[in-house]
Amino acid sequence: MTQPKDASPAPERVLLTAQTAREFAAALFEKTGVPQPDAAIAARCLVRADLRGVDTHGIVRIPGYLKRIEAGLVDPAPEFVFEPVGPSVARLDGRDGLGFVIATRAVDHALGLAAEHGIGLVGVRNSTHFGMGATYLLQAIEAGYGAMVFTNASPAMPPWGGRGELFGTSPFAVGMPAPGSVPFVLDMSPTVVARGKIRKAEREGRAIPDGWAVDAEGNPTTDPGEALKGGLLPIGGAKGAGLSMMMDILCGVLTGARFAGDVGDQYKVFDRPQGVGHFIFVFRPDLFLTAQEAAARMAHLVKTVKSTPKAAGVDEIFMPGEIEGRCEVARLSEGIPYRRVDLAPLVEIAKAGGTPLPRGL
Amino acid sequence: MTQPKDASPAPERVLLTAQTAREFAAALFEKTGVPQPDAAIAARCLVRADLRGVDTHGIVRIPGYLKRIEAGLVDPAPEFVFEPVGPSVARLDGRDGLGFVIATRAVDHALGLAAEHGIGLVGVRNSTHFGMGATYLLQAIEAGYGAMVFTNASPAMPPWGGRGELFGTSPFAVGMPAPGSVPFVLDMSPTVVARGKIRKAEREGRAIPDGWAVDAEGNPTTDPGEALKGGLLPIGGAKGAGLSMMMDILCGVLTGARFAGDVGDQYKVFDRPQGVGHFIFVFRPDLFLTAQEAAARMAHLVKTVKSTPKAAGVDEIFMPGEIEGRCEVARLSEGIPYRRVDLAPLVEIAKAGGTPLPRGL
Repeated sequence: MTQPKDASPAPERVLLTAQTAREFAAALFEKTGVPQPDAAIAARCLVRADLRGVDTHGIVRIPGYLKRIEAGLVDPAPEFVFEPVGPSVARLDGRDGLGFVIATRAVDHALGLAAEHGIGLVGVRNSTHFGMGATYLLQAIEAGYGAMVFTNASPAMPPWGGRGELFGTSPFAVGMPAPGSVPFVLDMSPTVVARGKIRKAEREGRAIPDGWAVDAEGNPTTDPGEALKGGLLPIGGAKGAGLSMMMDILCGVLTGARFAGDVGDQYKVFDRPQGVGHFIFVFRPDLFLTAQEAAARMAHLVKTVKSTPKAAGVDEIFMPGEIEGRCEVARLSEGIPYRRVDLAPLVEIAKAGGTPLPRGL
Repeated sequence: MTQPKDASPAPERVLLTAQTAREFAAALFEKTGVPQPDAAIAARCLVRADLRGVDTHGIVRIPGYLKRIEAGLVDPAPEFVFEPVGPSVARLDGRDGLGFVIATRAVDHALGLAAEHGIGLVGVRNSTHFGMGATYLLQAIEAGYGAMVFTNASPAMPPWGGRGELFGTSPFAVGMPAPGSVPFVLDMSPTVVARGKIRKAEREGRAIPDGWAVDAEGNPTTDPGEALKGGLLPIGGAKGAGLSMMMDILCGVLTGARFAGDVGDQYKVFDRPQGVGHFIFVFRPDLFLTAQEAAARMAHLVKTVKSTPKAAGVDEIFMPGEIEGRCEVARLSEGIPYRRVDLAPLVEIAKAGGTPLPRGL
């Protein structure tokens, strides 16, 4: 377990290499009965979020996942069978396994369909929280494919005009490779902010800005605790609310997963599995053109975007996901600066179970 | 040409039945060389927008389309050949025909692929403005299918952090049938408002609200004319801007259409065809379930949405597209109230070409 050279994080932080973080995370999953290959997948997904600066979806969440495995609500070792539905379509029952493993396998399967037929769609039911949507876009992009990866999620926002929580703040995630250039990695919540950001503010004892959320009565609030009891505000009003409903339709209604407010919140509902659904669609970027043309066109788009005249106060125009991609490059070489307080629950679990701790923790 | 009974529009308006409006619109297209079946398709698409209250995308736009046909920039009578790309995928060269006809035919073809294989994707290049996105969702929904219908469009907004115009305010359109209930018809621009609303404000001499658009220098403006020279503001900042880029990637980069700011504005660019691209994906709602289960689940979602506790001041919660659907039902029986001033250019064209006018015009 090596520490990068010249690492001098603030004392409340510890720098871990991605490899160290992955080994630690995988060991924790294995200890609760997740087979080694699946534990490695889950660890890779979570650490990728940390590498990209999306620390709301990183290894700090592990205690929540382990708790659900221990409660029998997540099956640590399900067997997956893809059922063919058509030449380019398959169905997967996730059997309440880890969302990371289910979604990674489903993307793999969709890539196989697309390799043969140009496009591949996999509908997934009985899954659980799959973490950062961009993980799966990158899986497709790194294999040379474009992708749409949608999931539904536990209730966090009302339909437009309503009160309380019905639909999830599911990531809307669409990606496209750009060989030799910057890939398109759009991974966004349909709300002004993701719920993870409110949870982080609560953890860190900070107020949230106005316009992010409402309390249980539907009134604006800057208290993250009240916001977590209330609901998040969608982007563009009815538009963001419509996007969230779309994800519940594609991932829930269509696939056979839970839907319409019935997906279990992993932090609140302990009497049944989550029942999450995913809609995973991948496509060859050279579906309608030669591979060379496709790559040249995408590179031209990126170049055009990045050379657009800048608005006042803007130093650089970024592709969606580009800032996160640079963070990943930096953290791969410099290490990931975790807050000790965020890792404390993981350290406690490791100590209780006899899992070796990374140096410095 | 019948007028509905009890019709008493304000004197500046004229009520036309949908049938009358369609016949008038089709006659104008036929007069410029569009074959009868294609003229009927274009007329049906445009009048459907008027029926649904989306009058920014209705027959008032006809003079613009005719002008481009007469300028040789739109081919009134191209022949379409769908090239198979895979069992569920086809490519269409729109040959600079009318976008309405191209998109309608492409949805039809995609439905045929989906009937056989569960899903169908058609990538379209060399198309033109196709009007209201919901038209094509409804075409799929009425055939019993779900759909994603994306298009790119002429430059109207910068990438996030940029100035000026690069990407279009393309409709993001996704639909799902709900037999016996209210279908999901999400048709939204990734901007706070569609450019058509700004054009309408300009036509009607009204200022636009703050937060809709910026002028050519990137400063906020309430002047619709300045806004049309400047750019529209996306929903959710970088998120809406990312959605617009996504549509340019899927509809332009992928299909072989023009892209990255190169799609021609139908009202400004008269030295070449528009080169619009479409991404049309349809799917069977019973892909992963029985048809009965699928229908029951969608009906349950709609019922749950509509019975959600209402926010203060809200009388009813609507599904996306439901208000427009009710407008369509009402206008089918009561007629469509057109502003005479908006129809004046059509009347002028009809008179010049000897096309019979609907009664009352």
